[in-house]
Amino acid sequence: MQGLAASSKLTTMAIVLTVLLIGLAGAAHGRRRIVSDDEDEPCKKMTLYYHDILYNGVNNTANATSAAATKPTALSTTHWKNGTYFGMLVTFDDPVTAGKALPAAGEEPVARAQGFYLYDKQESYNSWFGFSLVFNSTAHKGTINLLGADLMDEKTRDLSVVGGTGDFFMTRGICTLQLDAYEGTVYFRLKMDIKLYECYV
Amino acid sequence: MQGLAASSKLTTMAIVLTVLLIGLAGAAHGRRRIVSDDEDEPCKKMTLYYHDILYNGVNNTANATSAAATKPTALSTTHWKNGTYFGMLVTFDDPVTAGKALPAAGEEPVARAQGFYLYDKQESYNSWFGFSLVFNSTAHKGTINLLGADLMDEKTRDLSVVGGTGDFFMTRGICTLQLDAYEGTVYFRLKMDIKLYECYV
Amino acid sequence: MQGLAASSKLTTMAIVLTVLLIGLAGAAHGRRRIVSDDEDEPCKKMTLYYHDILYNGVNNTANATSAAATKPTALSTTHWKNGTYFGMLVTFDDPVTAGKALPAAGEEPVARAQGFYLYDKQESYNSWFGFSLVFNSTAHKGTINLLGADLMDEKTRDLSVVGGTGDFFMTRGICTLQLDAYEGTVYFRLKMDIKLYECYV
Repeated sequence: MQGLAASSKLTTMAIVLTVLLIGLAGAAHGRRRIVSDDEDEPCKKMTLYYHDILYNGVNNTANATSAAATKPTALSTTHWKNGTYFGMLVTFDDPVTAGKALPAAGEEPVARAQGFYLYDKQESYNSWFGFSLVFNSTAHKGTINLLGADLMDEKTRDLSVVGGTGDFFMTRGICTLQLDAYEGTVYFRLKMDIKLYECYV
Repeated sequence: MQGLAASSKLTTMAIVLTVLLIGLAGAAHGRRRIVSDDEDEPCKKMTLYYHDILYNGVNNTANATSAAATKPTALSTTHWKNGTYFGMLVTFDDPVTAGKALPAAGEEPVARAQGFYLYDKQESYNSWFGFSLVFNSTAHKGTINLLGADLMDEKTRDLSVVGGTGDFFMTRGICTLQLDAYEGTVYFRLKMDIKLYECYV
Repeated sequence: MQGLAASSKLTTMAIVLTVLLIGLAGAAHGRRRIVSDDEDEPCKKMTLYYHDILYNGVNNTANATSAAATKPTALSTTHWKNGTYFGMLVTFDDPVTAGKALPAAGEEPVARAQGFYLYDKQESYNSWFGFSLVFNSTAHKGTINLLGADLMDEKTRDLSVVGGTGDFFMTRGICTLQLDAYEGTVYFRLKMDIKLYECYV
């Protein structure tokens, strides 16, 4: 019987401790913080497509959603005479879609990607991104902030999700990029696999 | 008696576990990490005012604290003939104050905001910020690092605090921006409500 | 005997709770998250050297690994007639080494630093960094993403490590910079003391 009493107290204790532990991880009034410690189990996943339609300097102002704000530097031709755009900074306000297709005329994309990339390698194409995914729909409102190296020589490469706002309050994670399609130097589509490991729900 | 013994052991156990739990969240020698899991209860709050005095290209070099490092691209006039500055990157070393007024001559502001913003929308004004708040006073020494979308169409919009140094070692949080005043295109003042959710104390 | 039974159950309980606690901090399949709450005990430390060889605009294209993508603005000479480069954005693809020496011809550096710095102070030299350390060796594969104010007036200054990928999955930390050597305006070497406080192992 005493053993049973102790056992029952142990159960109570376990409950108290569980509540304590939940209390440590939880929130009284606002959303509750979740940290996924297992890299195989993000707290949120999304696959999106990023469409970059670069202004060609001639005749596509109507369609283009990105443009070079600086010219390639003299070092852009040190290793390859055709140039690697080293030093060219491109500003973009690019549509981001759930499927591969660009939105039809009048259709809204699921998000906009707004920010810049900067070509930063002499030997080959490579760039550095700093931008926000801006969501403004019934499904999602808020931003996801990303940055990192787009190592274009690699089949897939990872950017860091360093913060978020609104529905993505204080998030962190990884965004895996993969080239999905391109047309010359004027259009490319990147598949973005976003895995968030810190969420507030 | 056995029950009492077990109960006393349970109490000891609870203390041991509490110490363990504090140990997990705490620090032996340096500052202790605090994570506020409740979005309503940041571990630190500040309201500051950011003053941007843009060089007009003519006659305000003596007062200006920011200047365009790149010109707007050709896409800046696609949707609005007066232009949305799309692609213009502005470098700034702006005073940041606790009150709304600019510091009097010779007075130091509470911090400097140093970094850049980049206009990144074709249809209207919108920008992307990457900068540091640099504190160097008796009250605060260190930096807060911020980035994100300044969605100027919204009454308030949030940037991410992605890191910090010195007094703001390893911090994370949110900075809510609100336009507080402006004079033409040469001056604007933003109210910055900074809420930090990861602090070291 | 009952006391012994209870004690034995307490032991079991302690094990269960320990597993629970490890479970909270740990991972089932992937790497396990470690947060060092003590600023004196990072989960990983590295000392590296960053070499910036700036294109001089004349005759060092063969050696240069960085180049100005924008010119200094008009405000760069407001406080000092020789100029503080205010508004000059420099793109770099710089070698990073474990020792102080530059890699010999044909030797690979331990990492590349790819990204940009932007001069952002009128009164003196000061810059803002956004870049990735790109590792691609048998020792390390992955990137460390950094940003922050390089307060060149200070003997040492700290940048934020805001994320990482590959071997540095989801990392955060601090990178302390110190000028280690320079030659005129064409070369400088920074000692980088990197201390990571969030690691996955």
